[in-house]
Amino acid sequence: MIKKNLNVNGKKIVVVADSETSLADTLREQLKLTGTKVGCGQGQCGSCSVLLDGKVVRSCVTKMNRVPEGACITTIEGIGSPEKLHPLQLSWTVHGGAQCGFCSPGFIVSSKGLLDTNPKPTRDDVRDWFQKHRNACRCTGYIPLVDAVVDAAKVLRGEITEDDLAFKMPADNRIWGSKYPRPSAIDKVTGVTDYGADIGLKMPVGTLRLALVQAKTSHAKILSIDTSEAEKMPGVVKVITHKDVKGKNRITGLITFPTNKGDGWDRPILCDEKVFQFGDAIAIVAADTESNAKTAADKVKVSLEELPAYMSAPAAMAEDAMEIHPGTPNIYFEQKIAKGGETAPVMSSAAYTVEDNFYLQRQPHLTMEPDVGLAYFDEEERLTIQSKSIGIHLHHAMICPGLGIEPEKLRIIQNPAGGTFGYKFSPTMEALLGVAAMAVNKPVTLKYDYFQHITYTGKRSPFFVNLKLGADKSGKLLAMESDWSVDHGPYSEFGDLLTLRGAQFIGAGYGTPNIRGLGRTVCTNHAWGSAFRSYGSPQSFFASESLMDELALKMGMDPLELRSINVYRKGDTTPTGQAPDVYSLSGMIDKLRPLYKDAMEKCKKGSNPSKKKGVGVSIGIYGCGLDGPDASEIAIELTKDGVTLSTGWEDHGQGADIGALGTCHEGLLPIAIKPDQIKLVMNDTAKVPNSGPSGGSRQQVVTGNAIKNGCEMLLNAMRKPDGSYRTYDEMVAENIPLKYSGAWTASVCTPCDENAQGSPFSVYMYGVFMAEVTVDTETGKTKVDKFTVFADVGKINNRLAVDGQIYGGVAQGIGLALTEDFEDLKKHTNLIACGLPYTKDVPDSIDIHYVETPREHGPFGAAGVGELPLTSSHVAIINAIANATGVRITKLPALPEKVLAGLKK
Amino acid sequence: MIKKNLNVNGKKIVVVADSETSLADTLREQLKLTGTKVGCGQGQCGSCSVLLDGKVVRSCVTKMNRVPEGACITTIEGIGSPEKLHPLQLSWTVHGGAQCGFCSPGFIVSSKGLLDTNPKPTRDDVRDWFQKHRNACRCTGYIPLVDAVVDAAKVLRGEITEDDLAFKMPADNRIWGSKYPRPSAIDKVTGVTDYGADIGLKMPVGTLRLALVQAKTSHAKILSIDTSEAEKMPGVVKVITHKDVKGKNRITGLITFPTNKGDGWDRPILCDEKVFQFGDAIAIVAADTESNAKTAADKVKVSLEELPAYMSAPAAMAEDAMEIHPGTPNIYFEQKIAKGGETAPVMSSAAYTVEDNFYLQRQPHLTMEPDVGLAYFDEEERLTIQSKSIGIHLHHAMICPGLGIEPEKLRIIQNPAGGTFGYKFSPTMEALLGVAAMAVNKPVTLKYDYFQHITYTGKRSPFFVNLKLGADKSGKLLAMESDWSVDHGPYSEFGDLLTLRGAQFIGAGYGTPNIRGLGRTVCTNHAWGSAFRSYGSPQSFFASESLMDELALKMGMDPLELRSINVYRKGDTTPTGQAPDVYSLSGMIDKLRPLYKDAMEKCKKGSNPSKKKGVGVSIGIYGCGLDGPDASEIAIELTKDGVTLSTGWEDHGQGADIGALGTCHEGLLPIAIKPDQIKLVMNDTAKVPNSGPSGGSRQQVVTGNAIKNGCEMLLNAMRKPDGSYRTYDEMVAENIPLKYSGAWTASVCTPCDENAQGSPFSVYMYGVFMAEVTVDTETGKTKVDKFTVFADVGKINNRLAVDGQIYGGVAQGIGLALTEDFEDLKKHTNLIACGLPYTKDVPDSIDIHYVETPREHGPFGAAGVGELPLTSSHVAIINAIANATGVRITKLPALPEKVLAGLKK
Repeated sequence: MIKKNLNVNGKKIVVVADSETSLADTLREQLKLTGTKVGCGQGQCGSCSVLLDGKVVRSCVTKMNRVPEGACITTIEGIGSPEKLHPLQLSWTVHGGAQCGFCSPGFIVSSKGLLDTNPKPTRDDVRDWFQKHRNACRCTGYIPLVDAVVDAAKVLRGEITEDDLAFKMPADNRIWGSKYPRPSAIDKVTGVTDYGADIGLKMPVGTLRLALVQAKTSHAKILSIDTSEAEKMPGVVKVITHKDVKGKNRITGLITFPTNKGDGWDRPILCDEKVFQFGDAIAIVAADTESNAKTAADKVKVSLEELPAYMSAPAAMAEDAMEIHPGTPNIYFEQKIAKGGETAPVMSSAAYTVEDNFYLQRQPHLTMEPDVGLAYFDEEERLTIQSKSIGIHLHHAMICPGLGIEPEKLRIIQNPAGGTFGYKFSPTMEALLGVAAMAVNKPVTLKYDYFQHITYTGKRSPFFVNLKLGADKSGKLLAMESDWSVDHGPYSEFGDLLTLRGAQFIGAGYGTPNIRGLGRTVCTNHAWGSAFRSYGSPQSFFASESLMDELALKMGMDPLELRSINVYRKGDTTPTGQAPDVYSLSGMIDKLRPLYKDAMEKCKKGSNPSKKKGVGVSIGIYGCGLDGPDASEIAIELTKDGVTLSTGWEDHGQGADIGALGTCHEGLLPIAIKPDQIKLVMNDTAKVPNSGPSGGSRQQVVTGNAIKNGCEMLLNAMRKPDGSYRTYDEMVAENIPLKYSGAWTASVCTPCDENAQGSPFSVYMYGVFMAEVTVDTETGKTKVDKFTVFADVGKINNRLAVDGQIYGGVAQGIGLALTEDFEDLKKHTNLIACGLPYTKDVPDSIDIHYVETPREHGPFGAAGVGELPLTSSHVAIINAIANATGVRITKLPALPEKVLAGLKK
Repeated sequence: MIKKNLNVNGKKIVVVADSETSLADTLREQLKLTGTKVGCGQGQCGSCSVLLDGKVVRSCVTKMNRVPEGACITTIEGIGSPEKLHPLQLSWTVHGGAQCGFCSPGFIVSSKGLLDTNPKPTRDDVRDWFQKHRNACRCTGYIPLVDAVVDAAKVLRGEITEDDLAFKMPADNRIWGSKYPRPSAIDKVTGVTDYGADIGLKMPVGTLRLALVQAKTSHAKILSIDTSEAEKMPGVVKVITHKDVKGKNRITGLITFPTNKGDGWDRPILCDEKVFQFGDAIAIVAADTESNAKTAADKVKVSLEELPAYMSAPAAMAEDAMEIHPGTPNIYFEQKIAKGGETAPVMSSAAYTVEDNFYLQRQPHLTMEPDVGLAYFDEEERLTIQSKSIGIHLHHAMICPGLGIEPEKLRIIQNPAGGTFGYKFSPTMEALLGVAAMAVNKPVTLKYDYFQHITYTGKRSPFFVNLKLGADKSGKLLAMESDWSVDHGPYSEFGDLLTLRGAQFIGAGYGTPNIRGLGRTVCTNHAWGSAFRSYGSPQSFFASESLMDELALKMGMDPLELRSINVYRKGDTTPTGQAPDVYSLSGMIDKLRPLYKDAMEKCKKGSNPSKKKGVGVSIGIYGCGLDGPDASEIAIELTKDGVTLSTGWEDHGQGADIGALGTCHEGLLPIAIKPDQIKLVMNDTAKVPNSGPSGGSRQQVVTGNAIKNGCEMLLNAMRKPDGSYRTYDEMVAENIPLKYSGAWTASVCTPCDENAQGSPFSVYMYGVFMAEVTVDTETGKTKVDKFTVFADVGKINNRLAVDGQIYGGVAQGIGLALTEDFEDLKKHTNLIACGLPYTKDVPDSIDIHYVETPREHGPFGAAGVGELPLTSSHVAIINAIANATGVRITKLPALPEKVLAGLKK
């Protein structure tokens, strides 16, 4: 132990700490200065940045014995507070710098370090600083953060005032369509927001800390689990195995399609008979401290019989492959698509055909915050699980039977989540927390380190796609033939649905009249498939939007023009035979055209043999909703102070708060309520109706409509015969109910049939993407110089949130195209190895052009937004590489060595 | 568990807490908002005051299930910070409102609550508010706190500015004699100062929490200790008994007098053979949480054979009483006094003699902070004990052999202490912490609740005194005969020294030529005797200053005049035969006389049969130092930024920091250093020389002289031939040493001999006290209306600190006179039952008149101060009761029932 005198945020503090402890842990665990976040814990994300004697340091890798006696430390808590924001914090809120907000404290502290030394930085100075200090963000694409620093610097230099910078209410008092900062922003930028680990640290004394005993192999039979030595270790309260699970010990995917050959009960909470993938939980140690729990976990002896591990779809599909889940074939689901007539005759007579094979990798989500949660019994003896769940009611149903608890005795709450991008559509640790809390009858917390977070949460499922297009001599598409295999890992939940997405999105955007194809879901021993932004579409568009360029090349036609003549027009239908809700693609292409020509021109001029420049385009489409008649419910209540809106609109970081607030405010315009009079109660199954999960960009449409409906019901009740509105007091006096349920169902939808024909979504989003790249022909490295987005996401609720979604989605598209992967279990275990884009990997120029076609079925004309930018932005980049170099990458990511190999061919 | 949304200091917080947990524990343990202090834990002290939705509540008795959902809570952290003090906080610092500072956050929060609702309170409004909200302070006598609120309100009303209120450096840049606020004040008033429990809460995860197994009986033989069940309890790491103690398992008083019949090794660390008093520690449970440790402690089975408990000196002195420590008589030390000739012949011929018996009770210290500490092994593998020790080097020596550790492997550090008033002159939990840390090899913390704090820390030892005075017909004292028995509890440490104090202070102040007497130290089974402010003198003066009034009454002479003719004048000597250092008593009486006459007049006028008013006076004297050639050492080093002063001047709350700073600043006047250039390194045996313990008002004199000496040595080294001074850089360039040891020994002193004759102290403090009281003859309740102090404490270092000592000492004198006691083990277990004075028990009018006679042996003329106001202020009150009612109280405290009984006689 060392005793140090420190000055932390201007306060003299004496701290006794283990000399090997990190400064971050000391600040967080001992001083509860939880504004400093620990993301990767390896110095790769900068979430833990603090100023140490004025210098930016990553506190997670700064050991206490390296902190000088008497050192001055500034954390986010020392920079400003909700009542007195620092200009950087103000600027962060007005530029939408905080989406999930987990990285915000680190970025702001780092930026403070920059402005303290360089009061007038250029944008490049800011970008260099972020890059140098490894400040990573997964939500924003960095541009809003650079904007924020530049404007804060102006305030600090006195060139503008805080008032100039602050958001101003529009004259009409409508916030719909404005840049009203999200309500949660202030707490996020001041370090006040407590994420799961922070809440865990602030749990009552006596809370037990959990550690998992996990499989270090990918496929094995469990022979025995010996917990005896672990049970005797210091601080251990209990070692929990499958024998302690009261229920079925299985997580169910619930909505398994009837033709699925599995029953959906394939995922154990705690492994009993078999290990299905690396990291599978075999036991849980509950102990007084995390360190004691982990030490004891190492002492649990698991005896295994190793089995062949099938680490990809083709391996698991091999004839001699054993059934991973005995009794269920590894190919457990098949989805046909059949639209129009047979394709074989059309293909044989087509003027042009192209065919290729594509592979889109197992993209990791790389959230800044690793997975975390806690559980306890609440005041009504409900087992209460707080996690990053983006489907609180969904997960409630998925884990309840496995735990063996009555549904009314289970409560799920979403913590502020430091990014999910979909991985939390699957339960991760919820059931483990529940099992543990039930076994020890004490509050418990569980926190994954980044290794666990990467290796033991779901990933985007790779697609192996074979695709063939046939076109007439003008380039008009006549037919498409598709075959796709989905490596869904060992657990089936939503695997059938994902496979259907292939049918829905391969070739989407074009009114191709004849389609035949077959997709299949394959059980493997690699990471289980979970949702990821644009679920199923990046894989689909990678094939079809790449092949469109191949077709254009073959035809000698401009790729944009080929798209232009094929995109949806009146009379066209989607691959599922649905009439598109709007027809904006063609118009967007027309608007892009001059920019595209300029870009082409510029590239041509800028290219040289060592730096080749190119331009690529792609189109992207995504449906807003769960397939078929998706539904949502909310509650709204008139109160003395305004209204209370209760909804389970879970937040990844995308802005559920501003989504709900903006919609509700618009819905209540007639009574001229102020935004801060709308109190949001969110994401607690004990308090809010079932608004459905936050996936598939459904919430703005489906829950947005439910909110609109609730507002209408309330307004109807408040409306007087003369058209004016009753006050709260008048409502009470007249004994008129104050609380209303708002509900909406996408009743215009029909689920897809066995041929994948149907009208699955009520609203779609449409985009056209253009990437400009430079390929270094010596290294094979691709740099995205500029990115242009045309987006029709309907009427825009909140411009900051929508901009942020698009910037962030494009940045993820860049990662998907060029660097990101989770394939090698030994190598792909941290942010850098997994290819996370840092500031300078994302261009400072991402131009967004909105085409706001109002949607009939969207509330106030809105569609969703989150999935759109990642549908096919990666393909624009891949097409640009081909444009620059002639190298066609069909297996992602386009790592330098692959490009280089192509160049050498 | 309940999950609540709260707004704490403007920050939205979600907290999950046990519904039965207190708000204080939730704020402190879970959120680490340790500015909110927990003193009594029973709602009696207000240290834990917070604003809950604008109302002052005591958070220690506010359960979480009573905190409304969405409540706004303001703690001291939300009121201001060191960088931006709230006017209340500023005002607190400039009025010396923070002595130990433990109550300051609670008072300031409470005052905020007042000013939020009443912006212009009168002094009585403030006092009523403090009384109503049970804000208790043991240091300041409340007056500076009322001053602080009144001035802060002026700032808030805009009548004065913060600048008007702030301390201003004198034109000559000397802080000696000024009201320079103590350096620690800002941290104390902002809640930044971490006291022991706060440090304990911020220890690393994995720190073990201790609970004691304590005797519930006062005297017993231990038959067996069965720890087996406790060891199996949840979270228990080890149950530690005497068998685990590596060393002698005894604490030694070290400086036992040669004639002491005991050897000083009578106090076990952990009881082995016997229990000697209620609360004695028999075992220690080390567990993961305090709650688990306490639960397990209840499971340790101790089998005892009860023995007769001797709960007072007379009981233990009875002929049939068994030896509490077998082999050592219960009367283990006797101290004679023999000055001048035999007294018997003088008495028989004296014109007047008076004789009476007196008993001064077992006064409890009633600090706001209960005892607390922690231990761990530091980076050099030293067993490091952090406690409230006010004798770090002394305790080091006292516990080292008992622990069985090499002296160089033991380090003691004083934590910021929330008041000690002397109880921490004895080791309390230091050895227990050491034993536990050695047994478990982990950091450990121990925290007494207020019951433990009262029942298991030392108390002021009661004296049973028989005293006889003989005077000539003019009232001139001729002889004194004394007999005193000291109930020192079961442990001998310093008991002989305390008994000597009776010889030194009974009858002090008067040059009585002939004295005979005998005192004895008695071992009992009541609370062990520890130091308490004015150590030994309140007991002594209670006898002699009461008897002086009895003599005056008998003679029909005015008590002030009787004193006036007897107080020290040139040629007189103290009871120990020492010539007083200064002769200021007579002059102080002359100055008091007109005030005394006015008071007498006023009382006469104000009295009526139901409210009788009276005036009482007393004189008080105390020596500054340990007996004989007391010594101290400090170190001073010139640094680039100023100087670093290292000293073990421990702080009770009296102001060690400003004492050391003021002295050092004065010592370095020639080099014109600024106060904030003096860095203080204090109270860590690994870092500071042995400056001796903080007791007996010795530090300002003894360590003050050592600082002066150190400054002189440094200045000598810096002085150039031309009389100017070298800079730091010049010193370095010339290779002149930068660091100097300052030392001082009271070489003019000689210890007292067997007849108690000697010159034990180099410097004395002198005071004259006047109390004005009203006695309610229906209830017997006494109220002190006004108090006047004349004090000669030499030249004053810091006026704020000295005023504060006097206010606080007088308030303790009021408690001692009227209410305070620790006698009944069942009843006297909390602040209220023990008689703590609250605001309205202390008059708002305490007038202090200084007579600054420079002391030859005091640094820059200073004496000490802390003990003076409690030497005999209580006797002035008792004399005033007699003056008002004719009722002479000889057994303290003067509870209403005693006064009533006297009135009925």
